[in-house]
Amino acid sequence: MVAKRPKFCGWGYEGEGLTPDEHEMVLERYAERFGLEGFARIPQPELEDIDLHGARLEVPAKLADFCSSTDFDRLTHTYGKSFPDYVRIYNKDFTNAPDIVAYAKSEDHVEAVLDWATGANVAVIPFGGGSTVVGGIEPAVGGKFSGTLSLDLTGLDQILEIDKTSRAARMQGGIRCPDIENGLRPHGLTMRHFPQSFDLATLGGMIATRSGGHFATLYTHIDDFVESTRMLTPAGAMESRRLPGSGAGPSPDRMAIGSEGSLGIITEAWMRLQDRPNQRRSTAINFDSFERAVEAVRQLTQSGLFPSNVRLLDRMEALLNGAGDGSHDVVVLGFESADHAVDAWMERGLAICNELGGSYDEAASKAEDSNTSGAAGAWRAAFIKMPHFRDALISAAVISDTFETAITWDKFHNFHENVTAAAEQAIEEVTGRKGIVTCRFTHAYPDGAAPYFTFQAVGKHGALAEQWLEIKKRASDAVIDYGGTITHHHAVGRDHMPWYERQRPEVFGLALQGAKDKLDPGGILNPGVIVPLAQ
Amino acid sequence: MVAKRPKFCGWGYEGEGLTPDEHEMVLERYAERFGLEGFARIPQPELEDIDLHGARLEVPAKLADFCSSTDFDRLTHTYGKSFPDYVRIYNKDFTNAPDIVAYAKSEDHVEAVLDWATGANVAVIPFGGGSTVVGGIEPAVGGKFSGTLSLDLTGLDQILEIDKTSRAARMQGGIRCPDIENGLRPHGLTMRHFPQSFDLATLGGMIATRSGGHFATLYTHIDDFVESTRMLTPAGAMESRRLPGSGAGPSPDRMAIGSEGSLGIITEAWMRLQDRPNQRRSTAINFDSFERAVEAVRQLTQSGLFPSNVRLLDRMEALLNGAGDGSHDVVVLGFESADHAVDAWMERGLAICNELGGSYDEAASKAEDSNTSGAAGAWRAAFIKMPHFRDALISAAVISDTFETAITWDKFHNFHENVTAAAEQAIEEVTGRKGIVTCRFTHAYPDGAAPYFTFQAVGKHGALAEQWLEIKKRASDAVIDYGGTITHHHAVGRDHMPWYERQRPEVFGLALQGAKDKLDPGGILNPGVIVPLAQ
Repeated sequence: MVAKRPKFCGWGYEGEGLTPDEHEMVLERYAERFGLEGFARIPQPELEDIDLHGARLEVPAKLADFCSSTDFDRLTHTYGKSFPDYVRIYNKDFTNAPDIVAYAKSEDHVEAVLDWATGANVAVIPFGGGSTVVGGIEPAVGGKFSGTLSLDLTGLDQILEIDKTSRAARMQGGIRCPDIENGLRPHGLTMRHFPQSFDLATLGGMIATRSGGHFATLYTHIDDFVESTRMLTPAGAMESRRLPGSGAGPSPDRMAIGSEGSLGIITEAWMRLQDRPNQRRSTAINFDSFERAVEAVRQLTQSGLFPSNVRLLDRMEALLNGAGDGSHDVVVLGFESADHAVDAWMERGLAICNELGGSYDEAASKAEDSNTSGAAGAWRAAFIKMPHFRDALISAAVISDTFETAITWDKFHNFHENVTAAAEQAIEEVTGRKGIVTCRFTHAYPDGAAPYFTFQAVGKHGALAEQWLEIKKRASDAVIDYGGTITHHHAVGRDHMPWYERQRPEVFGLALQGAKDKLDPGGILNPGVIVPLAQ
Repeated sequence: MVAKRPKFCGWGYEGEGLTPDEHEMVLERYAERFGLEGFARIPQPELEDIDLHGARLEVPAKLADFCSSTDFDRLTHTYGKSFPDYVRIYNKDFTNAPDIVAYAKSEDHVEAVLDWATGANVAVIPFGGGSTVVGGIEPAVGGKFSGTLSLDLTGLDQILEIDKTSRAARMQGGIRCPDIENGLRPHGLTMRHFPQSFDLATLGGMIATRSGGHFATLYTHIDDFVESTRMLTPAGAMESRRLPGSGAGPSPDRMAIGSEGSLGIITEAWMRLQDRPNQRRSTAINFDSFERAVEAVRQLTQSGLFPSNVRLLDRMEALLNGAGDGSHDVVVLGFESADHAVDAWMERGLAICNELGGSYDEAASKAEDSNTSGAAGAWRAAFIKMPHFRDALISAAVISDTFETAITWDKFHNFHENVTAAAEQAIEEVTGRKGIVTCRFTHAYPDGAAPYFTFQAVGKHGALAEQWLEIKKRASDAVIDYGGTITHHHAVGRDHMPWYERQRPEVFGLALQGAKDKLDPGGILNPGVIVPLAQ
């Protein structure tokens, strides 16, 4: 079997993606949306078009077995999957390509890389699924290193142990989501963590970036599924004890979770699993007012019913994703279980929506296939296809991006209004034309929501990077000014560092610096991410 | 109104506790339990009996407004509420009494203490409820300090802000549980966190020690209720943003939570609250076999029903607490809600128990007052009285203590057998007579349980400290050897440090040391707790 190769430019693997017809259809739909006849188009660059500068480092002999500095390897480890990443690929700008790519297949390989790099003053950038949308894996590390190495961990792809009694599995950090699910299915188990990056994302990458998954309430981040972690650092291995709960000091796992490669490389984790659900109910509820839809989600999350899905789509978002006709705000509500029928849960959930004026198809809410049909099903299908759309849009200079955050309920409406206004205003000033800014909730909590904004605008070839950056800056300023977090589940990376530094307590920054000084004395691990580059 | 004074010796406040009749009744019951006629008794010491050494420090002029070095203040800030603490009080051993007690009433006071202490090389021991059972607040800090100061935070006792929409409140770190609940009740809200130390425990103390509370599943530790924290450190204030969820780097709160005063003083927190439940069902299910009772709890926690209570008592534990006749292992199962009737939940929970051979009173499980009557009610009443029993037992040289841990389901039976055997054997070898070792589950998780062991033995006046220590050591060794955590919710303190150091990853110890070096460069904060004393 030939291994699939992730694309050099675009989402997923070589040979996958939109068909030429679908590509055209997406662009037609967007042209219509903006009232245009069509778009000025530029072609996607080919690998051969890139004129890559020579590597500054030679692969050292002791790492030669699993390291490479071919153009292909360096080019496919320069960028993630963000809008500005794509822009620079189209611009053939590979200034920050790594000098070496290491394909680790064992912990020994990882240790050998850390040892050599610490001695040689080489920055090490951990590379998992490569699906970052925040510059988490770009080797942009400033001038103090002799070179950069991208440490590809997808060779650490095994499920090592399954404990059916406790419903947990020990897995390697480089295993991708599909392989996790395929490996667990024969045992009747599932990790049931489905980020939009499912196809590419790796376990270690998701833990390091606090990935957001399938469950809209309760178990929103991967954090809650982590039973223990094993992280290799230049100071040695940090392996936590496998425990269902503990009160022994600050949690070691919670320091690894979200560290984004700045403290160590997550090579293994014991993950909590679920039984595969066999009872499901899902339906869409229409609301005449956004405020009442928001209120429904608040009450649902405070009810103790713990819906697996409670996704709010504002009316424009619903329209654009085929989950509505644009006249209603929509709440997609779902319950699931591997243990019991969820009718009582759904009944009470719908009663809450009903009291707030929500309307829904009674029969559909009771259907066996209710999670894959109707508006709920339409949303599900759109969600999976979304990452491929950007491939088409970029060639037409359509600026299309998303940002997500979280905010307590008391502040939500003011926050939503101001953030939306900031993004809309920035788009109009930057592009000279109105854009589209929509909002949905990806996850919701008893004390607040995780709003997810999508913005779309007609940009200009040659100026896309600057246009995007200005819009991003002004939206991010608003997110921080009005009390949100710079990221709910897309992580910090390099792109969010200026706002992360405004958000996180300065004294906590000191604490992380202190921790990093001990674990990574050479400061070689993903420099500039989480812990700022030294001035 | 005269403020209540916490007792110098014993649980709770002056004037509270067992009546003389109850005291006698407790001892009669224990004498019977061990087959004795009665106990050799020694009287409880009075404050005046203690010959306290002079303070090594004078109260500095700038702290004089809120500091004291009277004998009363120093004596009441030397110990917590553990068995060995009581033994040393009876022995009139106050070697480690603090030199100064500061009664902080504002953050300014806390900052003034940290400033002065850093300059004067004085160890600062944060003191909340004073209810530690692990030596968390004893000023035993080795020889490198010029003296010790106990920083009493119970003057920071206000609810500062209530957000009903998001169901959250901003409260000061020194507020005690009863004042929290009294302040929230008029708003229809509750923190619903009821540790056994409820009467004394403070918010900041519970956060710093990862307190375990009311909910047996899902929201077991106080950790999950923390929305944001404010912690004063010698390097400045560390205040996290109020967020319902975030993915921006490692959680700052999770570093404060469990830091046990070693990194800073928690002066404020935003806490997530609950609506006051008005729907409750609770019942006790009897099992013929301990294994099947354990299996029932495992299935209940993996069901997604999230019972508020699922407490397993082995048959001896049930007997001793009036929740059974000793012929059955008992599972107390409860559901509660402020939103919906919980009948469907209870019905499915009982079906799981039924399939495993559990028996229960059908009618009782449906009664309105089912949470306060029957075996469930008996358990509830005993739970609240328990801390007072020790006051009686110590005078009769009965060694009585508990330890709690957590372990994944796959390892549970082997763990339970070996830990029980280690404790039983230690008791017999140390005291020359069989003791009693019982087990219950205080909390349970999809991937494991939190077993809570109680041990009781007939000790000898004059040798109690050594006898206890030997039993504790051998039980703790077994907990660590067989895969558990040294504490599920009693914290680490000074007593658990040797096992904590075996349990937590060494590299994580380095990270915490690095963080402490930055936040507390003088190393004055609760020296020897979480971060070991320098050799």
